[in-house]
Amino acid sequence: MGSNLQQINQVAVIGTGVIGNGWIARFLAQGYDVIAFDPSEGAEQRTQKAVAQAWPSLEKIGLAEGANRNRLAFMPTIEKAVCDADLIQENVPEREDLKKAVLASIDAHAKKSAIIGSSTSGIMPSVLQEGLAHPERLIVAHPFNPVYILPLVELVAGRKTDQLVMDRAKSFYESIGMKPLIIQKEIEGHLADRLMEALWREALHLVNDGVATTEEVDAAIIYGAGLRWAQMGPFLTFHLAGGEKGMRHMLEQFGPALKLPWTKLEAPELTDELKEKIISGCESHAGDVTIGELENKRNEFLVELLSLVESYWPETTATKKLVVEK
Amino acid sequence: MGSNLQQINQVAVIGTGVIGNGWIARFLAQGYDVIAFDPSEGAEQRTQKAVAQAWPSLEKIGLAEGANRNRLAFMPTIEKAVCDADLIQENVPEREDLKKAVLASIDAHAKKSAIIGSSTSGIMPSVLQEGLAHPERLIVAHPFNPVYILPLVELVAGRKTDQLVMDRAKSFYESIGMKPLIIQKEIEGHLADRLMEALWREALHLVNDGVATTEEVDAAIIYGAGLRWAQMGPFLTFHLAGGEKGMRHMLEQFGPALKLPWTKLEAPELTDELKEKIISGCESHAGDVTIGELENKRNEFLVELLSLVESYWPETTATKKLVVEK
Repeated sequence: MGSNLQQINQVAVIGTGVIGNGWIARFLAQGYDVIAFDPSEGAEQRTQKAVAQAWPSLEKIGLAEGANRNRLAFMPTIEKAVCDADLIQENVPEREDLKKAVLASIDAHAKKSAIIGSSTSGIMPSVLQEGLAHPERLIVAHPFNPVYILPLVELVAGRKTDQLVMDRAKSFYESIGMKPLIIQKEIEGHLADRLMEALWREALHLVNDGVATTEEVDAAIIYGAGLRWAQMGPFLTFHLAGGEKGMRHMLEQFGPALKLPWTKLEAPELTDELKEKIISGCESHAGDVTIGELENKRNEFLVELLSLVESYWPETTATKKLVVEK
Repeated sequence: MGSNLQQINQVAVIGTGVIGNGWIARFLAQGYDVIAFDPSEGAEQRTQKAVAQAWPSLEKIGLAEGANRNRLAFMPTIEKAVCDADLIQENVPEREDLKKAVLASIDAHAKKSAIIGSSTSGIMPSVLQEGLAHPERLIVAHPFNPVYILPLVELVAGRKTDQLVMDRAKSFYESIGMKPLIIQKEIEGHLADRLMEALWREALHLVNDGVATTEEVDAAIIYGAGLRWAQMGPFLTFHLAGGEKGMRHMLEQFGPALKLPWTKLEAPELTDELKEKIISGCESHAGDVTIGELENKRNEFLVELLSLVESYWPETTATKKLVVEK
């Protein structure tokens, strides 16, 4: 992890809604001192409640040495919250003007060596860097709810971000049990939320058009694609759906479907170049492992996952409705 | 399950690619006699290989009494394959002309009481019913790969489908361990594939635009949304992301994001009516269970799922790339 990590001793969390509190719980479980700031009434109590709720899961995952829920202090101002912090995680509501105002205040009071990570779901880091005195230390570090359990964090550099800051941030988030994914190009919504948002918008259309209820949409995901996506993502999933010839066959068979009105989203043209990107991407991802071996492993995983799902969610209304027979 | 089920003793599978073979494995494991037809050379051997690969998973899930991999026979013609079958599952390539020709042939030779289920991913059943002598027995019964493990099957009636056929089909698919989801309105792509296709098209755009590689897209799903979608689907997931006020708060906070260019898909207008549909859908789905209780259960599930994922996929390239540190 390198000596860079030694520099991060204290973290500050600005904005303590669901995401901010998720970060606090993760940082505390990893043995950090956490300083928090949130101007809303009752924030500290809500955070304590949220951390208490997260703690049993964190104990099960494993606490770091010295981890203690009491190593949390709320400060009355941003200045006092950030002045000694080595990493500052910003989680205020998703409004550009508000984020920029808060980041300007953080920028004015933070140590020069501090890393500032914004949890923004959608705003590009270069936009957030506008007007900062030290924009080189700002990155997007976008987590997923529940932040104290899910490992993904998207790291996005802005035009003015220092590469060393990205390197230090990657090491830090890895050291707290996360899987940092460096996004190659900054775009609105980054990467994961673009995928989710596409599915979400289609889901809204389907409910709006009377094709399905919200529960039916959920059931359509859980018992099909959801079980698959927890194991291998859409590309490797389709690589296996193509039989022995993998993604190459899959694109031949289902490529033409991209022309069909299967969603309200228009697909890109499936050029030879794009095909090659996808096929070689899947093949290099699979590496030396054959499709048959991947299938075996997928099957073992799915059988276990299926029994896990059944043991946890047998009584949801969606399932009941599906299972109950007249 | 009712007396209707007694009528289904023999099933026929027409078209034995990845999906047809998945059905065969499931039917055999459930103790059925299966008759198959596929005109391509070597089809029978490929099916035997596919069933052999599926069998260990099916044994782990639990075989029905009398289940035997040898209770499978290939026939040289569609006529001979379907003439004695009580349920016929059609799985030929996704081309409307081909499907219609094969279904016409099935229609001409099947028993009048037989159910004909098409595995089509996208074509509407009313379209497939055109020109059939007995369209009332045709439905779409769309499964998900691997068909012998994943429980979801979408059932869609065409304009001419007999309601009794839908009822019998639902009972049958439930009796073989599946979760039939009745789709309220026929549309191209049905329900689940519309959601998947939206995400898939966005993924293709992201790869095409150089935002991410296929592996990075997969990682962005697996370690974030994928882990969530295996447990509760997009609506209930967001219901929990909204804090104590659930989906109502979520729509206030992230509703405006629907106007932003976060995907290449345009969202529907978030009217009061649509809002109400979504909020009340989530609230009735959650029922008497509080958000806090749902969160606890989600957390327990996620902690177990995370350790399952880690134990199965620690060495994929995507993870390696994420974890390896210079």
